[in-house]
Amino acid sequence: MSKKVCILGSTGSIGCNTLEVIENLNENNYPVQIVALTTNTRIDLLALQIAKHSPESVVITDKSAYENFFINYSFPGLEILSGEEGLIEIAGRNNYELLITALVGFSGLKPTIVAINSGKDIALANKETLVVAGNLINGLIRKKNIKLIPIDSEHSAILQCLTGEKKDSVRKIILTASGGPFRNKTLNELKNISIEEALSHPNWNMGNKITIDSSTMMNKGLEVIEAKWLFETEIEKIKILIHPQSVIHSMVEFNDGSIKAQMGIPDMKIPIQYAVTYPDRVYSDLSNMDFQKFNTLTFEEPDFNKFKCLKIAFDVLKTGGTYPVVMNAANEIAVKLFLEGKISYLSIPEIIETQLNNHVSLNENDIDNIISIDTNTRKNVLDNYT
Amino acid sequence: MSKKVCILGSTGSIGCNTLEVIENLNENNYPVQIVALTTNTRIDLLALQIAKHSPESVVITDKSAYENFFINYSFPGLEILSGEEGLIEIAGRNNYELLITALVGFSGLKPTIVAINSGKDIALANKETLVVAGNLINGLIRKKNIKLIPIDSEHSAILQCLTGEKKDSVRKIILTASGGPFRNKTLNELKNISIEEALSHPNWNMGNKITIDSSTMMNKGLEVIEAKWLFETEIEKIKILIHPQSVIHSMVEFNDGSIKAQMGIPDMKIPIQYAVTYPDRVYSDLSNMDFQKFNTLTFEEPDFNKFKCLKIAFDVLKTGGTYPVVMNAANEIAVKLFLEGKISYLSIPEIIETQLNNHVSLNENDIDNIISIDTNTRKNVLDNYT
Repeated sequence: MSKKVCILGSTGSIGCNTLEVIENLNENNYPVQIVALTTNTRIDLLALQIAKHSPESVVITDKSAYENFFINYSFPGLEILSGEEGLIEIAGRNNYELLITALVGFSGLKPTIVAINSGKDIALANKETLVVAGNLINGLIRKKNIKLIPIDSEHSAILQCLTGEKKDSVRKIILTASGGPFRNKTLNELKNISIEEALSHPNWNMGNKITIDSSTMMNKGLEVIEAKWLFETEIEKIKILIHPQSVIHSMVEFNDGSIKAQMGIPDMKIPIQYAVTYPDRVYSDLSNMDFQKFNTLTFEEPDFNKFKCLKIAFDVLKTGGTYPVVMNAANEIAVKLFLEGKISYLSIPEIIETQLNNHVSLNENDIDNIISIDTNTRKNVLDNYT
Repeated sequence: MSKKVCILGSTGSIGCNTLEVIENLNENNYPVQIVALTTNTRIDLLALQIAKHSPESVVITDKSAYENFFINYSFPGLEILSGEEGLIEIAGRNNYELLITALVGFSGLKPTIVAINSGKDIALANKETLVVAGNLINGLIRKKNIKLIPIDSEHSAILQCLTGEKKDSVRKIILTASGGPFRNKTLNELKNISIEEALSHPNWNMGNKITIDSSTMMNKGLEVIEAKWLFETEIEKIKILIHPQSVIHSMVEFNDGSIKAQMGIPDMKIPIQYAVTYPDRVYSDLSNMDFQKFNTLTFEEPDFNKFKCLKIAFDVLKTGGTYPVVMNAANEIAVKLFLEGKISYLSIPEIIETQLNNHVSLNENDIDNIISIDTNTRKNVLDNYT
């Protein structure tokens, strides 16, 4: 019997890797059937994915891309939906079991909530969902008794280290971080970082938003918040450790002093496959870890002064409430403005801090609060910088 | 309700560490009661242990030490046994649940078999037991449905990595090895190694026999054989990886390409405690892993030409039968002769190879075969070199 999945964001980096993983699984007698695929604007890639994987439905959220799809392609029998309504519609259906959400940023929140409410397990690559609504999501998960399985390599590593262990024996969650391309630069040198420099990550090949977030270490900040909600742990137990080789994907220290680490080549297909097959493991022909190549692993403490976004994330998590919503929204727009050449690199943390300083926290378990704060923050930042 | 334990070899390095672990456990509301302690000759240390831990019985295997004990000490109500018969007597009793066997070399075999046959769980630091009789022991374990928990840091690491995982998902068991004090010496330089040089291990503070075995890498060879029986795995799946810092204690690679590693400061108290509390973990105030101190971890391939004992162990395991018994016995005597200054360092593998070449394998599931081959091999080596 095959596992039926719906993939939100199938044309992004995680989405494409997910489709490769599913091909591998089908070849290795772990049948996975793709019920739905979605894209924002990449209709040509979507068309190729449709031709290969024969989903029942697709969603094209961007209106003009949706219209162009009809002009360019014809797939008899295929249901084609549009807009955020389309995502919500397919997420809530009962023709699948596992929602793989690889959307970018805040947009993943509503479809994820709909999927949880209709009893689906979630494989989550969209960390912003937990960042802005972790408490709310955890409440729904408990109510519906579904599984939320992380796809982020760090959180997948932690989940793997926790497998078979008792939660109350965890002393520390050690999130490793490559440190990004600017690990060895001074704060002063960060002033004149170009878009191209910020987009060149040393170890991982990812989308633009997450690559910039990696360079500012906001990505690690988001992961800290994600870890807090995924593993329901105190913030004091979460540590960041710089590990430039990105071979150890994260670690857990237990109360007896023992540490477990998960490692492997830096390839997202490993954590993606683990999320799809969890708690099983299935054969994959990905190249093995070569310890002659990765023969030296190093560790450093993070520099919170240089990477202000990382400090902001820890502060916001301590404060709680709806501050993480503001941080996330301000960051998304600031990164967008930086990529458009409209602000400097170091303006990213400044913009976030300004928004946080002006915020008064509301009840973070109210989805309407979360959406209106997100919308308002985005508007505020855009109004100030365009 | 307290866990009742019997500790064979309580005055050795593992034994003493075990008593410290048990003190920590008792302080942390995990009550452990020590029913019996044993020593070969160290009666003064044993007397201190008795005064502190109040066992019901002790065994002093060495005859003259046994007699001296009565001259020097008096513990009203304490039962004092002697000889190997004493070890077998207490191992077979029903006043305890877990046998912790920290004897050195072949001597641990018989008491362990008696304990398994009387339904006790075993915490095993005495790797030679599995090396000489792994198949026999595994048969008894299945019959009695008891748990055999390794204390060796490498095998404890593997057990921890396997926790919560399915056995058929294991692709490789990666035993890490410090490489010992002679990792950077040439084969030629090994010719004139002194006893003092061989006894200075870079990372671990251990007994003499295992320290010499570490320097020749026979210890790793014994561990390969131990791993084969503990985890019932094919020899082809076991790899050795030199890791001079001894921070990663071993790893498991799974069939999806993911690797789990267990790490921590090099302190035997961590794996000892894990074996005593398995599958639980209990708080320990051992110092945490400091990644600023251990900020660089390196890996190298082992040199089978230089460390002939390692190659011998792999060969012997492939051949099977009673060859491991010969290897172990010849090694024990060769190490003894080296420590007595009677043979050179490189004679150790030569002596073992000579014995193996003269051996005709017998049924390895017959305890009498194992004992007679062990006895004869020791005699042969001694006859040739004294």
